[in-house]
Amino acid sequence: MIKQTEILLPEYPRGFHLITRQIVTALGALPETGMLNLFIHHTSAGISINENADPSVMEDLETTFNHIVPERLPFLTHTLEGFDDMPAHVKAALTGVSLTIPISGGRLKLGTWQGICLAEFRNHGGQRRLTLTVYS
Amino acid sequence: MIKQTEILLPEYPRGFHLITRQIVTALGALPETGMLNLFIHHTSAGISINENADPSVMEDLETTFNHIVPERLPFLTHTLEGFDDMPAHVKAALTGVSLTIPISGGRLKLGTWQGICLAEFRNHGGQRRLTLTVYS
Amino acid sequence: MIKQTEILLPEYPRGFHLITRQIVTALGALPETGMLNLFIHHTSAGISINENADPSVMEDLETTFNHIVPERLPFLTHTLEGFDDMPAHVKAALTGVSLTIPISGGRLKLGTWQGICLAEFRNHGGQRRLTLTVYS
Repeated sequence: MIKQTEILLPEYPRGFHLITRQIVTALGALPETGMLNLFIHHTSAGISINENADPSVMEDLETTFNHIVPERLPFLTHTLEGFDDMPAHVKAALTGVSLTIPISGGRLKLGTWQGICLAEFRNHGGQRRLTLTVYS
Repeated sequence: MIKQTEILLPEYPRGFHLITRQIVTALGALPETGMLNLFIHHTSAGISINENADPSVMEDLETTFNHIVPERLPFLTHTLEGFDDMPAHVKAALTGVSLTIPISGGRLKLGTWQGICLAEFRNHGGQRRLTLTVYS
Repeated sequence: MIKQTEILLPEYPRGFHLITRQIVTALGALPETGMLNLFIHHTSAGISINENADPSVMEDLETTFNHIVPERLPFLTHTLEGFDDMPAHVKAALTGVSLTIPISGGRLKLGTWQGICLAEFRNHGGQRRLTLTVYS
């Protein structure tokens, strides 16, 4: 059985943000056993899993991704949409835009310290559209 | 229901290349609702999603990945297959080799600006084999 | 049909390690056609696919990931759990913690040179818990 839901996240500031609660709320009742696929319909934001406890992890993910993919690299040619745009495309290739999570006992089977993150790589990315697909 | 197809992509030059059209053609008719998994059977090429509009994005992905994972890093030991080989393995670990995309209304549910990319990380990678699995 | 198994990997040293054999053993009999999802329930280790032949690839993956995400970057704030901790979170965001592999002919359909890797990013990461979900 496959059930699909589309959600629209409000604009988040640039950075990594825990959205586990929003996802769980949007999903509603889950099957006893199954899988959830999250897919973000954009090329300058990603979906990732990281630590849900200390907010400094979210902050350090943002600064370290900026270190790995700095803005204004001299060889970049896709610069018309702003200096944050092309690095955002690269970062989305690094995190990925699709994530599959097991469902067990009617719940997302995340580790104790795991949360689902929106990785917003643009300065002003706007609302972000996701498709949640549950299969069981 | 699960349907599996194997495809062989012709050799592409090193870099990122949109292959959405080849994938859609190989898939043929899709179920109303479901998921597509793409899996590339190699360790020096990846599968990714990125902007399908401006070709400069594909070019800047290639140069930025080269910036992140340069060739001839002095500590590398796996160099017998050429200076482009070990960096290609690292880049494949960064993009990933497996990608899951929702199907909705009998079509791949990609965002407006999203295309499926082959990330060819070798100078002469040869043909690349992919398995497409549709489940509904 | 969905079948889920949880496995606990013994502590591995920091680095990339082939675990294909452990996964195949834990799975037992596989369906004729289907998919396997591997999910690691941690935020400082990842699951990846890379070359299964030359052990130097595993070593160079470790050193190159350290090059991409060095320890002691001056802007890091999440340092209480050790200098290896925050880089491990970033590396887990790069490799990902979830991986989907096609099943065909009752076997994992990996390429000739592909193996499943545990990417252990902590100095002393301890045992690692994975959920294996087979759907067919």
